[in-house]
Amino acid sequence: MNTWQIDTDALESIAIGAGILGTGGGGNPYLGKLRVRRMLEQGHPIRVIPPESLPDDAVVSCVGGIGAPTVGIEKLQQGSEMLQALRALETYSGQSVDAVVSVEMGGGNSIGPMIVAAQTGLPVVDADGMGRAFPEIQMVTFFIYGVPCVPAALADERGNQVIFDGVQDARFLERMARNITIQMGCTAGFAMPLMSGAQVKQTAVVHTLSLAREIGDAVREARRLNTDPIAAILTITDGELLFRGKLVDVERWTTAGFARGRMRLEGLDEYSGQELSIEFQNENLVAYRNGEVSVTVPDLICLVDIDTGEPITTELLRYGYRAAVLAIPCSAKMRTPEALAVVGPRAFGYDVEYKPLPKRSGVGIL
Amino acid sequence: MNTWQIDTDALESIAIGAGILGTGGGGNPYLGKLRVRRMLEQGHPIRVIPPESLPDDAVVSCVGGIGAPTVGIEKLQQGSEMLQALRALETYSGQSVDAVVSVEMGGGNSIGPMIVAAQTGLPVVDADGMGRAFPEIQMVTFFIYGVPCVPAALADERGNQVIFDGVQDARFLERMARNITIQMGCTAGFAMPLMSGAQVKQTAVVHTLSLAREIGDAVREARRLNTDPIAAILTITDGELLFRGKLVDVERWTTAGFARGRMRLEGLDEYSGQELSIEFQNENLVAYRNGEVSVTVPDLICLVDIDTGEPITTELLRYGYRAAVLAIPCSAKMRTPEALAVVGPRAFGYDVEYKPLPKRSGVGIL
Repeated sequence: MNTWQIDTDALESIAIGAGILGTGGGGNPYLGKLRVRRMLEQGHPIRVIPPESLPDDAVVSCVGGIGAPTVGIEKLQQGSEMLQALRALETYSGQSVDAVVSVEMGGGNSIGPMIVAAQTGLPVVDADGMGRAFPEIQMVTFFIYGVPCVPAALADERGNQVIFDGVQDARFLERMARNITIQMGCTAGFAMPLMSGAQVKQTAVVHTLSLAREIGDAVREARRLNTDPIAAILTITDGELLFRGKLVDVERWTTAGFARGRMRLEGLDEYSGQELSIEFQNENLVAYRNGEVSVTVPDLICLVDIDTGEPITTELLRYGYRAAVLAIPCSAKMRTPEALAVVGPRAFGYDVEYKPLPKRSGVGIL
Repeated sequence: MNTWQIDTDALESIAIGAGILGTGGGGNPYLGKLRVRRMLEQGHPIRVIPPESLPDDAVVSCVGGIGAPTVGIEKLQQGSEMLQALRALETYSGQSVDAVVSVEMGGGNSIGPMIVAAQTGLPVVDADGMGRAFPEIQMVTFFIYGVPCVPAALADERGNQVIFDGVQDARFLERMARNITIQMGCTAGFAMPLMSGAQVKQTAVVHTLSLAREIGDAVREARRLNTDPIAAILTITDGELLFRGKLVDVERWTTAGFARGRMRLEGLDEYSGQELSIEFQNENLVAYRNGEVSVTVPDLICLVDIDTGEPITTELLRYGYRAAVLAIPCSAKMRTPEALAVVGPRAFGYDVEYKPLPKRSGVGIL
């Protein structure tokens, strides 16, 4: 893998691809995309480096946004929240960060590191901590495979900043950070964790920014050529079509800092007379076909517009959307017993066994 | 005023005096007192210095406990929470603290700085930020008169620590710190704010540790001589007897990290046939005599045992206590318009005017 540059074309594709991989969550990428586009136009380059190129002793930090996506589309970021959190983390730790990386490859948090990269000149690592999006801090491969979750920093648009240290347990960090985020108005910028290059190489889900770009490229190509964008997505992601239907009901409640809810789709075409319902917590968690569990976390349940392949995030769901529902196998790093204890259906309160989607080697999310 | 040493005798008196000045809150001093007594017996000296002796450029920090007193008597401190918070604050700010001071002269938080003093050898300043106890962070003279509220640090018994910075508003710091404290199990140690010696001299309520000791000495002397401890307290504090009665009802709820509630007393002796009720949020806020507002914050409403003068903190209230209720004029620093905006009855949601208790010059809380 080589170093490459984000340009407006790559940005457009990544926003689509990461929106799909975000399984409804990660925040809507639209506002972040506008910000990055503006910074590219102002001449701030954004360099993407493969994780393999990181020296073992490089210092890497995730940066991104934490909060409820429903709020994230209404409460505009000031623009410096993530950078302020990163600087607070550097000052506190006495370490200088060499590269930034996404905590999740989904929506806004796939774009976040690019904003900081444009602001600082730091490169973005072509990887992330989930190979998808998930709602809680402990659900990243970095923590699942032993990277300490602190020091960690949050910052908001008014300059408030909070640094966490001494925390042994990413779940407890999640509780504290979530509560502070709620006080900060349900969205904040974060920088966490500080990792070595070696830790990134051992624990990250790799090449996901390239994958997001590839997905987005294929969708846009299909639109240009008037071919089927869904088929293109499924080929690249090793996924399968789960359903085609019309969104007929959405229940939604923003609670404890999350966008929770459930949606119901009525089948179209060959799915006519069938029903699919999906429950979500920022991200889509479990899909039920005609009342039976069909696909669960950590595998990806992705809604895209039936005609354009455009991802549909949970905060934008509304009656009448005609959607294709895709099931995409998650990273192998999310299928180990250690990972399933944190991101499997039981970790989300569903008493069902995880049945992994079949997975071809070397294709999709690695 | 001179430098003096805390010995077990002074400790005993301060626990009584600060318990009375705590107006029911500040946490029960009993556990802290046992800890300090043990450290004194182990040969750790605790030096009290008058605020006048502080160089203008000295670095001073408050240390203490934050949380619900109801929880504080059940969840034992590990013992190093406040010190950990102080060390975190020093490391973060790059400043070395020269002295510690109480945020409030009430219950546990009058004792807290002594624990840190014994652990570190730092002196305790004979002053505090309230001249009584109050439930929320913004209610200290330091913040009311312009000391920045950050950086500030919290630490819990498991080593979790949180540092706040960039916060402009002590009320917002209160909200964030309160939420973190709840996550930490409703009690935590804090270190905040960092102040200069000059700031302490300008903004603190002075000589309150000496006052607490003097009150406690007088109560203990009265017990020895079988004279009236209540009269002794009133003389020293410039206070008046509001009521003598039996506690016949206590409603209590621990909510949003506070011990809230109300109590009702039926009159004894010359108060027979009358009724006094008091509403509290950790501390006693408003006293109603026969349904009419009688005394309000920021003046002190203090319950003591009718025979022994022993302070009765809100978390220990129970049916049958025979109590004297004392009304003590608060510090002049709590009676300015700036202060009343933060600690007056309206700041606690009571739509009543503050009517200051009469105050003789040079007596009681200065």
